[in-house]
Amino acid sequence: MSRAYNFSAGPAALPESVLRTAQAELLEWGNARASVMEISHRGKDFIAMAEESEQDLRKLLQIPQNYKVLFLQGGATQHFAQIPMNFARREQVVDFVVTGHWGEKAVKEAIPLTHVKVVASGVDGKYTAIPSRQSWQLTADAAYLHYTPNETIHGVEFHEVPDVGDAPLVADMSSDILSCPIDVSKFGVVYAGAQKNIGASGLVVMIVREDLLERCPKELPKIFNYAEHAAAGSMLNTPNTFGWYLAGLVFKWLLAEGGMPAIGQRNRAKAELLYGYIDDSGYYANPVEKPARSRMNVPFTLPRPELDALFLQQSQAAGLLALKGHRAIGGMRASLYNAMPLEGVQALVDFMRDFAQRNG
Amino acid sequence: MSRAYNFSAGPAALPESVLRTAQAELLEWGNARASVMEISHRGKDFIAMAEESEQDLRKLLQIPQNYKVLFLQGGATQHFAQIPMNFARREQVVDFVVTGHWGEKAVKEAIPLTHVKVVASGVDGKYTAIPSRQSWQLTADAAYLHYTPNETIHGVEFHEVPDVGDAPLVADMSSDILSCPIDVSKFGVVYAGAQKNIGASGLVVMIVREDLLERCPKELPKIFNYAEHAAAGSMLNTPNTFGWYLAGLVFKWLLAEGGMPAIGQRNRAKAELLYGYIDDSGYYANPVEKPARSRMNVPFTLPRPELDALFLQQSQAAGLLALKGHRAIGGMRASLYNAMPLEGVQALVDFMRDFAQRNG
Repeated sequence: MSRAYNFSAGPAALPESVLRTAQAELLEWGNARASVMEISHRGKDFIAMAEESEQDLRKLLQIPQNYKVLFLQGGATQHFAQIPMNFARREQVVDFVVTGHWGEKAVKEAIPLTHVKVVASGVDGKYTAIPSRQSWQLTADAAYLHYTPNETIHGVEFHEVPDVGDAPLVADMSSDILSCPIDVSKFGVVYAGAQKNIGASGLVVMIVREDLLERCPKELPKIFNYAEHAAAGSMLNTPNTFGWYLAGLVFKWLLAEGGMPAIGQRNRAKAELLYGYIDDSGYYANPVEKPARSRMNVPFTLPRPELDALFLQQSQAAGLLALKGHRAIGGMRASLYNAMPLEGVQALVDFMRDFAQRNG
Repeated sequence: MSRAYNFSAGPAALPESVLRTAQAELLEWGNARASVMEISHRGKDFIAMAEESEQDLRKLLQIPQNYKVLFLQGGATQHFAQIPMNFARREQVVDFVVTGHWGEKAVKEAIPLTHVKVVASGVDGKYTAIPSRQSWQLTADAAYLHYTPNETIHGVEFHEVPDVGDAPLVADMSSDILSCPIDVSKFGVVYAGAQKNIGASGLVVMIVREDLLERCPKELPKIFNYAEHAAAGSMLNTPNTFGWYLAGLVFKWLLAEGGMPAIGQRNRAKAELLYGYIDDSGYYANPVEKPARSRMNVPFTLPRPELDALFLQQSQAAGLLALKGHRAIGGMRASLYNAMPLEGVQALVDFMRDFAQRNG
């Protein structure tokens, strides 16, 4: 067998060159005479790697000096709860904009901890569009506003950062971080599970504006307090060392590929190729309104659901993996994260065209 | 260069054969045509691996049917806080027995969450002994009793499970799990960060008696609720998939090595070799009372602290890594987890003898 084009929504494909580097040095990393997994996170070699990875990420996203970068654990879901614990007082309102499944989950985890107000939701349209900014009923003194710039399951993406006034903007960028340039200064907090565009699961990267860390309540257990994590350089306890190392390799790969401008262009081209074919095909369909379509996750349906099994079986055999849609909405889904090359999308389109001709 | 004997306290040495397997299949795992890091945790291949790893762990530790096994994140430190959140009501007392640094940390994280009572502590003796069971002032209706069977920094270990009456016993076994047979039925909860005897950092294994899960408060955010994790097969959110896979490889290695009886014997022989030499040397010293000495972590001092730097430099050059003691107590420390072979301990003793002769 050999590696195939992997359209998994997450954990997702990694750049092959990153995997090859990790493989080559899995038993001996640098001069450590041991694996990077086998050494102390407080040793100078690991610290140097950790700092370099942070600097590379800062370079990629042009992160301003007044933002801290944290390397945490628990997946984005844990931070759905931990963010209100840190940045909202119990009696405060937190505004949520919900444009899909992950925004719903963020709301659910926050409900026991703060006053949740859903100020806009796409649920009535089955999450096929983003409610217009004018319709959002913002709370005047909200602790912050939380949203999900890209929804992995519904394939809905914000293509601009919404202006929400004074409330700090908190963005779960698990599925679109590092997919194009962003202006970090527009956000209070950006956070992302690593398993889509950063590396392997088990790591969360958080970019947080320093003044917000002053809100972290001293009465929290230290391990849940972001200010404590920031003060300890994300080494309050043993971090996911292999995950951090792998993220560092991905950051270097992104820089070598030309950084965010080049990656952003490539991702736009990939998405245009696939949506263009779907719309022209008269066979496949994507339900999302064009201005809200995700560059990262492209859900699509076949003309008859009874063709789904055949499509999945034949695409798998053709070396196009993990195209099954999420059970919440059915159909197919192609995730086009950074590690997916344009050639992979072309191979998918070629297969889809052929399948449509054979099963018209 | 080549791999060396690695005495790191954690993240610690892994069995070389485990690393070689992980290396060989890092780009293509089984028939996945992708890395194990690149596939969905909800796919049937990953689920099968996950279930097999749990069964292997159950076999190794003879875990009774009425215990759940969870694969979590956050390090033991997060669970210092999460355990009281789940298993103690706010007004209840939790008893703690503190025999070193990690027991102290467990107390600190629990203080904001419950009524902490330290019923026994070795602090007055600088953690060189375990307070006798008769001296423990147990609380009649404690929610549970927490202790640390092995203290990594102070090198203090319980060699028997204490009888604490009705309170469920909660044990942070981060540094001695899988080092010898244990009777799981004596515990309410056993939990362990993976980075010593299980695998890589970023994974926590928890073994929890089912009836305790009924205590988990429904008002907790789901992601902090162990009953929810148990009901979801540790896939409430994306687990650390590579860490879980690696733990599974380690479990298979342990079974192939003869399981806990064989591993326990080997660990005893390793510890006896090193302590025996230290005690006979008239040069090195270990401060811990003999009945409380750790089989896993052996702190020792040289006759004059000004020799420490030379010892570290020469041992490193001799291929004996990471012998520097924790800054809290200074001196040296050799950690002898499962992946350290007897030959490694013999090489250390040979070096120590030679060093003593050269620097008498």
